[in-house]
This record gives sequence, C-alpha cells and structure tokens, in this order.
Amino acid sequence: MTVARAVETLLPDYQIIYYGDLARTPYGNKSSEAIIEYSLNNTAFLLEHGARVIIIACNSAASVASDILRQQFNAPIFEVITPAVERAVISSVTGKIGIIGTRATIRSGIYEQKIIQQAPGFRVFSKACPLLVPLVEEGWTDARETKMILRKYLAPLKQKQIDTLVLGCTHYPLLKDLIQYRMGKSRVRLIDSSIEVALTLQKYLSENPEFGKTLQRGSENKYFVSDMTKAAVNTAEKIFGRHMDLKKV
Amino acid sequence: MTVARAVETLLPDYQIIYYGDLARTPYGNKSSEAIIEYSLNNTAFLLEHGARVIIIACNSAASVASDILRQQFNAPIFEVITPAVERAVISSVTGKIGIIGTRATIRSGIYEQKIIQQAPGFRVFSKACPLLVPLVEEGWTDARETKMILRKYLAPLKQKQIDTLVLGCTHYPLLKDLIQYRMGKSRVRLIDSSIEVALTLQKYLSENPEFGKTLQRGSENKYFVSDMTKAAVNTAEKIFGRHMDLKKV
Repeated sequence: MTVARAVETLLPDYQIIYYGDLARTPYGNKSSEAIIEYSLNNTAFLLEHGARVIIIACNSAASVASDILRQQFNAPIFEVITPAVERAVISSVTGKIGIIGTRATIRSGIYEQKIIQQAPGFRVFSKACPLLVPLVEEGWTDARETKMILRKYLAPLKQKQIDTLVLGCTHYPLLKDLIQYRMGKSRVRLIDSSIEVALTLQKYLSENPEFGKTLQRGSENKYFVSDMTKAAVNTAEKIFGRHMDLKKV
Repeated sequence: MTVARAVETLLPDYQIIYYGDLARTPYGNKSSEAIIEYSLNNTAFLLEHGARVIIIACNSAASVASDILRQQFNAPIFEVITPAVERAVISSVTGKIGIIGTRATIRSGIYEQKIIQQAPGFRVFSKACPLLVPLVEEGWTDARETKMILRKYLAPLKQKQIDTLVLGCTHYPLLKDLIQYRMGKSRVRLIDSSIEVALTLQKYLSENPEFGKTLQRGSENKYFVSDMTKAAVNTAEKIFGRHMDLKKV
C-alpha cells in the first residue's frame, strides 16, 4: 500500500493495478518456499488483470522471490530492495548501514549481499523486527508500547553508530517519525524503500519513453485484495488519506 | 499446539493427528469467509489422514466455522469455545466474565452469546488483543514490553471487576502467568480453553466407550504443518518441552 501510494504520487497518469494478498499475510514470518509460491500466484494474477510492469511491493517477497519471478515472467520486474540499496550506498558517509525488516527479509541476507557488492568496504548491521508489522496493523503507530519496542529493536543498531538505516519493510514508513526520533534526527538518514522503488520506476519510464507510451493511462486504479477486513480498510485509508474502494477477489 | 499438548497429556493412549496451517496463520486478523474456507480445507485434510474425532483447536476458527464444519462433516467435532464457556459459567460467582481473544473471535460475539444463553443474568466484557499472538510467536513471553501491552489490554477488564477471565485464544496459555499476575492472583480465575476442550473430549470418550474402542491407539502421533520455519519449531518445542518432529505437507 505504501508503495502504491508512492507510485500514485510520482506517476499519477499511469494506471495502477494493486493486489494485496491479505488472506495469507503476513509473509515475513513464513518460509521462503511459501513466499515464493505466493509470489508466483500474485504475479500471474496481476499479469492476467492487465499489468505490464510488476513491482514486488514487499521486502519479504522481493528478498526470496525476485530472481524466480524474473525467470518465470517476461514483464519488467521492479522490487523494493535494489533501489533502497543504491540510495543507502550513496547516502552513507561512514559506510555503516543498518537494515530493519521481517524475519524472512533479514534471514535472506539480501541487503548485506547487495550492499557489499556495490561498496565492498561497507559494514551492514541487520535486525529482524517481527513485531512492527502487527503494531502498525493494530494502528499503534504512536503508542508508548511501540516506542518501547522500537527502543529495544533499534538499540544494537544505534550502538554500532550507523549513519543510514534502511526501512526494509513496506509497513515501516508508518513508523518513520518514531524511528527517526529514536535513531537521532541529525545522525541517521532513513531510506524508505517504498519511495525509492517509485523513483526508480519513474526513471525507467523516462529513459524508455517508447515502452512508457504503450502503458495504459487515464484509467481508474484498481485495488484488489484476497481478503477484506475493517482493519485492512482502515490501514489503507490511513496510508492514502482518502476513502479506498478495495475489491475482494 | 497447546490443545494437542493438553490432549496428549490427558489421553496419552490415543493417536493424535495434528495439522497446523502455518502457511496461512494467523487467522485472527482475517475475515470470517477466509477462516471458514481454511477450516473446511483443514478438516478435510485431517479426515483424509485418518482422524475420527476433530478438535477445532483455534478460537478464531471455532467462533466462525464450527456450525458449518458440523453440517459438512460426520465425525464428532469438538471446539475450544463451548467447554471454556461451561467452565467460566460454573467458575464465576459475581457473574462478571471477561473474554480476551483475537479480532475475529471477539468480533463474532460467540462467547457473550453462549454465556448469556447458559446464564442469562451474567455480564460479559470482551477485549480483542491482536498483539498477543505475535508477541508469543516472537518468544517474548516474559518481556517487559509484553507486560506493558497486557496492562493496556487488560485495564478495561480489571476495571469491570470480573472474577473469571477466559483465555480465548490457544496462544494465550503461554502468557498465563503474566495475565494472572496482572489480573490479581486471588481475584480472577483464568479459564484455559486448551485444557477445557481436552477434559471435554476425555469425558466424551469415557461416556462413549464403544466409540472410544474404535479409535486408533498406540500409534505414533503425527504433527503436520503447511509451512515450516525455525520460529515455529521453537514455539512447538517450548510448548511440548521436547524435540518435535514436524512434517511439512
């Protein structure tokens, strides 16, 4: 949702077809095998519904399924990790980068691998934060309990004196202010993978105008979900700041 | 898992066939439609694998799917709610009963409905506690943050001066000590739905010895899961206090 919101803001002319697999989320606590299977299903669904460019708008899925999706499908596939890595490497002065994400994302080691590939001297410190997704979904984005849990999760990263922190989960932008406060406003730069992937797609479309011309424009955006609850609608409306017409499929 | 453990302890002679749908959990934040669909699948799986008695060992599933499962399948079907309700009604002196559970369970209103049916003068106070499942799954069963979150969730129930509190989710027995401490040891009696359903099954088998004789005995218990992660194995081993051989299907 945070990715769809960022794409909508940066590229308002293009049609968005969104699919949120709420019937099987959260992905972050599941095995790589399960996440890969779900990601294959979801991508097929989007292509069947007319998508021409795919964004894997979930770090857990991107971390374990990107390569397989690129092998299986022909459409250009973007994901939230590579753009965040590029921005983090440019942003860091001291070469000490922190990553926070779900268990699946951190277990994959993909951020370390990609950062070290681009900047061999850099040091990467990772921390799985499995409670942050449920805290966001509970709507506790400013609660005292959330602040305490963030303090616990972020303490080891703070101690390493990182200067850049990647929000390696698309739920975390909703906690951006609390995380920024905890890490120190002038000390640590936060990288929001939702915004970075939208910027990368914008750049791709401006560099490939012929391809961009073939994409649907001016049509209404479609927001599909595999399960519908009041809490999900509330979160969607908080992210988009307007009434959201989710369609259950 | 807590239900399987209770059944294993009370009825060690009988074979247990367990199925944990970890690929799609948690159920508690999902819609009733999704939970019903999954419960139908899971019950069919257990019957295909030789189960003769079904226990719906999840309050979220029991609260929305029990009636439909009983219509669809012939086997005796037990669930975690009815036995907990009976025990709560017997246990309460003041007639003020609290219920904690997932969003799906609390939204269903099933505990209120069943308690009032049995004890029309009673008052029932419910509170959805969506963060407790992820806290248990994170292994924070004794963390300061968990205590704070429990304080917040339980405050309205404490204020109502309930004398009985139903742990309306099979994860909550792992937080029993913290919940008991928070509610006051001598003031509030906790009802553990996992233990109550195992006692009910034990009673049923002793009252129906002919049926009991037809059940498989002495065979090895089977623990199937639809997804396998290290965290799930850790939780299982914490509950059973031994090495657990989960089988992914």
